[in-house]
Amino acid sequence: MIRFESDYLEGALPEVMAALESSNFEQTPGYGEDRFCAEAAAMIREKCAAPEAAVHFLVGGTQANFTVIAAALRPHQAVIAADAGHISVHETGSVEATGHKVIALPTPDGKLRAGQIAGCVAEHWADSTHEHQPQPAMVYISQPTEGGLIYSLAELEEISAVCRENSLLLFVDGARLGVSLVCPGADVGLPDLARLADVFYIGGTKLGALFGEAVVITHEALKRDFRYIMKQRGGMLAKGRLLGVQFGALMADGLYERTARREVELAWKLRRAFEAKGWPLLCDSPTNQQFPIVPDEALEKLAEKYSFSEWGRVDAGHRAVRFCTSWATGESDVDELIADIEKL
Amino acid sequence: MIRFESDYLEGALPEVMAALESSNFEQTPGYGEDRFCAEAAAMIREKCAAPEAAVHFLVGGTQANFTVIAAALRPHQAVIAADAGHISVHETGSVEATGHKVIALPTPDGKLRAGQIAGCVAEHWADSTHEHQPQPAMVYISQPTEGGLIYSLAELEEISAVCRENSLLLFVDGARLGVSLVCPGADVGLPDLARLADVFYIGGTKLGALFGEAVVITHEALKRDFRYIMKQRGGMLAKGRLLGVQFGALMADGLYERTARREVELAWKLRRAFEAKGWPLLCDSPTNQQFPIVPDEALEKLAEKYSFSEWGRVDAGHRAVRFCTSWATGESDVDELIADIEKL
Amino acid sequence: MIRFESDYLEGALPEVMAALESSNFEQTPGYGEDRFCAEAAAMIREKCAAPEAAVHFLVGGTQANFTVIAAALRPHQAVIAADAGHISVHETGSVEATGHKVIALPTPDGKLRAGQIAGCVAEHWADSTHEHQPQPAMVYISQPTEGGLIYSLAELEEISAVCRENSLLLFVDGARLGVSLVCPGADVGLPDLARLADVFYIGGTKLGALFGEAVVITHEALKRDFRYIMKQRGGMLAKGRLLGVQFGALMADGLYERTARREVELAWKLRRAFEAKGWPLLCDSPTNQQFPIVPDEALEKLAEKYSFSEWGRVDAGHRAVRFCTSWATGESDVDELIADIEKL
Amino acid sequence: MIRFESDYLEGALPEVMAALESSNFEQTPGYGEDRFCAEAAAMIREKCAAPEAAVHFLVGGTQANFTVIAAALRPHQAVIAADAGHISVHETGSVEATGHKVIALPTPDGKLRAGQIAGCVAEHWADSTHEHQPQPAMVYISQPTEGGLIYSLAELEEISAVCRENSLLLFVDGARLGVSLVCPGADVGLPDLARLADVFYIGGTKLGALFGEAVVITHEALKRDFRYIMKQRGGMLAKGRLLGVQFGALMADGLYERTARREVELAWKLRRAFEAKGWPLLCDSPTNQQFPIVPDEALEKLAEKYSFSEWGRVDAGHRAVRFCTSWATGESDVDELIADIEKL
Repeated sequence: MIRFESDYLEGALPEVMAALESSNFEQTPGYGEDRFCAEAAAMIREKCAAPEAAVHFLVGGTQANFTVIAAALRPHQAVIAADAGHISVHETGSVEATGHKVIALPTPDGKLRAGQIAGCVAEHWADSTHEHQPQPAMVYISQPTEGGLIYSLAELEEISAVCRENSLLLFVDGARLGVSLVCPGADVGLPDLARLADVFYIGGTKLGALFGEAVVITHEALKRDFRYIMKQRGGMLAKGRLLGVQFGALMADGLYERTARREVELAWKLRRAFEAKGWPLLCDSPTNQQFPIVPDEALEKLAEKYSFSEWGRVDAGHRAVRFCTSWATGESDVDELIADIEKL
Repeated sequence: MIRFESDYLEGALPEVMAALESSNFEQTPGYGEDRFCAEAAAMIREKCAAPEAAVHFLVGGTQANFTVIAAALRPHQAVIAADAGHISVHETGSVEATGHKVIALPTPDGKLRAGQIAGCVAEHWADSTHEHQPQPAMVYISQPTEGGLIYSLAELEEISAVCRENSLLLFVDGARLGVSLVCPGADVGLPDLARLADVFYIGGTKLGALFGEAVVITHEALKRDFRYIMKQRGGMLAKGRLLGVQFGALMADGLYERTARREVELAWKLRRAFEAKGWPLLCDSPTNQQFPIVPDEALEKLAEKYSFSEWGRVDAGHRAVRFCTSWATGESDVDELIADIEKL
Repeated sequence: MIRFESDYLEGALPEVMAALESSNFEQTPGYGEDRFCAEAAAMIREKCAAPEAAVHFLVGGTQANFTVIAAALRPHQAVIAADAGHISVHETGSVEATGHKVIALPTPDGKLRAGQIAGCVAEHWADSTHEHQPQPAMVYISQPTEGGLIYSLAELEEISAVCRENSLLLFVDGARLGVSLVCPGADVGLPDLARLADVFYIGGTKLGALFGEAVVITHEALKRDFRYIMKQRGGMLAKGRLLGVQFGALMADGLYERTARREVELAWKLRRAFEAKGWPLLCDSPTNQQFPIVPDEALEKLAEKYSFSEWGRVDAGHRAVRFCTSWATGESDVDELIADIEKL
Repeated sequence: MIRFESDYLEGALPEVMAALESSNFEQTPGYGEDRFCAEAAAMIREKCAAPEAAVHFLVGGTQANFTVIAAALRPHQAVIAADAGHISVHETGSVEATGHKVIALPTPDGKLRAGQIAGCVAEHWADSTHEHQPQPAMVYISQPTEGGLIYSLAELEEISAVCRENSLLLFVDGARLGVSLVCPGADVGLPDLARLADVFYIGGTKLGALFGEAVVITHEALKRDFRYIMKQRGGMLAKGRLLGVQFGALMADGLYERTARREVELAWKLRRAFEAKGWPLLCDSPTNQQFPIVPDEALEKLAEKYSFSEWGRVDAGHRAVRFCTSWATGESDVDELIADIEKL
């Protein structure tokens, strides 16, 4: 079985493993108060052109999402997300488990628009009984989205402006952030995120680390006591250095971007094969996730040798599926898949 | 600086690192539904003589504690713990953050007694206004305790009996479980835990893994939907296989016990040096943690070269401190420390 | 100003006030353990033909909703409600504040259908990653709904059957239950509710009491320890007898139904006036709430003398509004309003 | 049975009932946005000499406690209380249910001392792992305490100063506040509370209202959005006017203080009888609660005719019990009890 169903099916980049190996016997204090974390945080601050940012390392995405949200909101406040957003549908109600409602706004493609955020907030305050509803206080978006789309700089500027006008914090889930930095059409860089968002994270799990998400906080009030909340929510790793070591490796010598670029290139190679085969794409994703709409018989045939994710039935004879490349995807595996597609 | 302040200051056992390396490129499904987790779980069930037990892998101890407790209790129920228990004092109120009170009972040494558990429960039910108090529904103990003591089989049998008579679940935090299996005086084995507790975990973080705690659930109702709650609380690692790989290595060929045994031996070597020096021990810990009471000047001198944990002032001129050995502690470092102590 | 905007704008029925007065100096134990509560509960059990039901008295509707839901669900479980349901939109995220997601299903009219409940549950279990979503475990409906519609017996039977097939608890919010028992078309009685729902409540606040909701629990497991959770969530009134006294008065001699019937009759008088005027109704509510669609100028004119609730703009020149009758609505006020409408 | 076990065994003062009757048919908006609430709030602000204070009316004490605490704290923060404090022991973990730990400090008599608060906070910050503990952020005291003692002005000044030095909010539970304003030795007035505390409440339930607690907030940040949190936690009464009506009556013409004074006088009459009989007092309560230590046989005899609360066994032959007077206590009942005591 050659697996393409997601980008967390293997271990870590050789450079990451090497860094773990080479630091393995060094003694450091626990809980992220070690030199590796300090160094990786400094590298991230520099890449983000955000010398005042707080950088914290968490283990996973769901954890990062609810920890940030719990740290940011008062009990009656809610977070706005797209209906297809990860916190809306794929985290077992983890945000609600911290006491907060996720206000899921409908979107055709998983991307929130500045206008609909403004509308949602305006509607809240216009209601004479707004105290009987959760108060929108944060906006959560993913870059790229669950469906592989990216926000342009113009879109992000607009969303950020709406958030600031309405006292909403802007939180960007960057579980796959790397690919959004390098894919065709990308025009949002780390400094833009640091400038436009109040908090975001740079995903490691899905970009070549064993695990780890680097949370970057630029909003002053949100920095306060963040480590308490990390600890309380189970996100403070005893051997916190493991996160620093991995992010240190990823951030050095452009490894993070290089890895993302390779993932994207292989994904586009697949995309071109889908298009050549006449399989339409569910959405125009420029990232390492591609969503062709494929005849059922073709999928059955492919499934004998390859794994992919089901994304939903499109019509009686066709389903949309996800093919995903990772840091570990072999070019020869991609070529084999393409050859098999051509043969279908 | 040679560090003895805790047992999570280095990476992982070479065997664990090797297992991670050798599996690094293998593709597996995510979220713990891979062959490595299945195999490690099977090994643990066998070691525990508990073929029906559910085994789940979580990343850290705080996470394991609140996930198990949240999964087990109804909203009005509370967990009984020693006043020095980890959930009572060192997890930033993470249990309370899931909505439950920790009923902290006073202990001279960090060990709960069966009688005081029975007393606490009896007092609850005897109160005509017991509905105005949280209802005790679970008992949390650590084996070994925070202070390095262990429950004997007789003590554990008694506690378990009291729990079953009173419909209390028994939960054993085994962050350092390995050392309790092999240290002098140890008479509680994994099958005993599986038989006497309703849920417990086998700690990896503090016994040679990069991270990871293996939760073993024998109580039928508690098994139900545990993975939902893991996911909701941030404990379901995307690359869950990493936990399976590590526990597979730890459980194979007695590595776990062998590592624990070595830690304990080095700790006893230190202990004998403390005793030879005339430094009394705060408590009679048979494990990898030793707590000598040391003159201030001696500590100042030692602190130039060694790190250790402050455990509390004993009198005007003496403090109790913790020296801890780990899988990575070098015997030569121990010898050097002993020589330096003798020289003082 | 003559007020029609809701049914909680005055105090309580004279019979309720008289009962409070006549019992005012009697001494009773606190917290609902008094003879008044016992007697009112017995009357309710009899009316419901549910001799085994547990009956508890809470102060308000939001409190009743989140207390029941918190008592019923494990942390990863969610409650299904209509998108217009009170818990979905008008309780400041109180259910989320207890940690649970409200799965809001779209409805044209605020009424859930059995089929869509079944569909929602089936979709959950069919998803191979269902552990990454909250698990539907309860269905919440209101009888009548926010928009004044009622579930027929056939509809309720169907919903109940779907719930039982799928291990979902059925919870009926009866804040205005009385009117649903007596309005035109009503065919669901209290014994039907007791038989088909697992828990429901009989609203007092909106039907002539100063405050109070009588929660009736027929589901065995849900009865357990309910008073603990009432206390914990602030719902156990110190002078609990006040609830027993009021419900005793309401349940005696058909006062509850008689009051509801009068409210409905006055509402229908209004409804006929709206129809005579050519104002269409937003929905075909048979209850004490009527929702005419009215030209803006007419509303402006009426607003000088009467209050009503805004329900939403229908088109450039028309808005839907709510007129609501209560136990205290004077027939002469209704007649005056009708005369003023005719004059417009 | 003549009842003395608590002060919430009857309905409400005739003046309160009369106010409810006389306003019964008046129509007002719901949810506390009516003229009665506005007027009562204004009276309270004036009595407190706190023209900027926010005043909100809640139904009960447990509700007031957790609503204020949930509104005030971030997730990792904790509230300090006496070990005998109401939130520590008699509210079914309601504070923990909002996610916060109650740090219960030991006291000989239920009164917190400024010094121990300072010590607790200093200990927190001195610990190098303070992020692994909940952060103390609020102090909760009761005036009078559960055991009927009162804080002097000097004590309250000291506690307030410690709180302000340490960025702790000071919250005073005034469920029985009235008696602390008028009892022998009382030197803390409402303006003192408004000046020294950040938030406190004036209890109605235990001082002649059917129910109700008036929360007075002087801390600026805590005022923000308080009504959202009231609604979310079930504390926003639909017919909120009932609270305004009752507090309007209590605050007018010194009724509140007059009622408290009468309660205290009757309690002291009892106290003198206990002393005359040679029954020592468990504590020197100047309030409406008296705690004599009584021989078992005497209690058995008294229990045939009178009810009182068990407060704990003192020795093999004696128990401490609580006798409590209320607004409704008849002087003839007190005299009858005294005569019966003398006859024993």
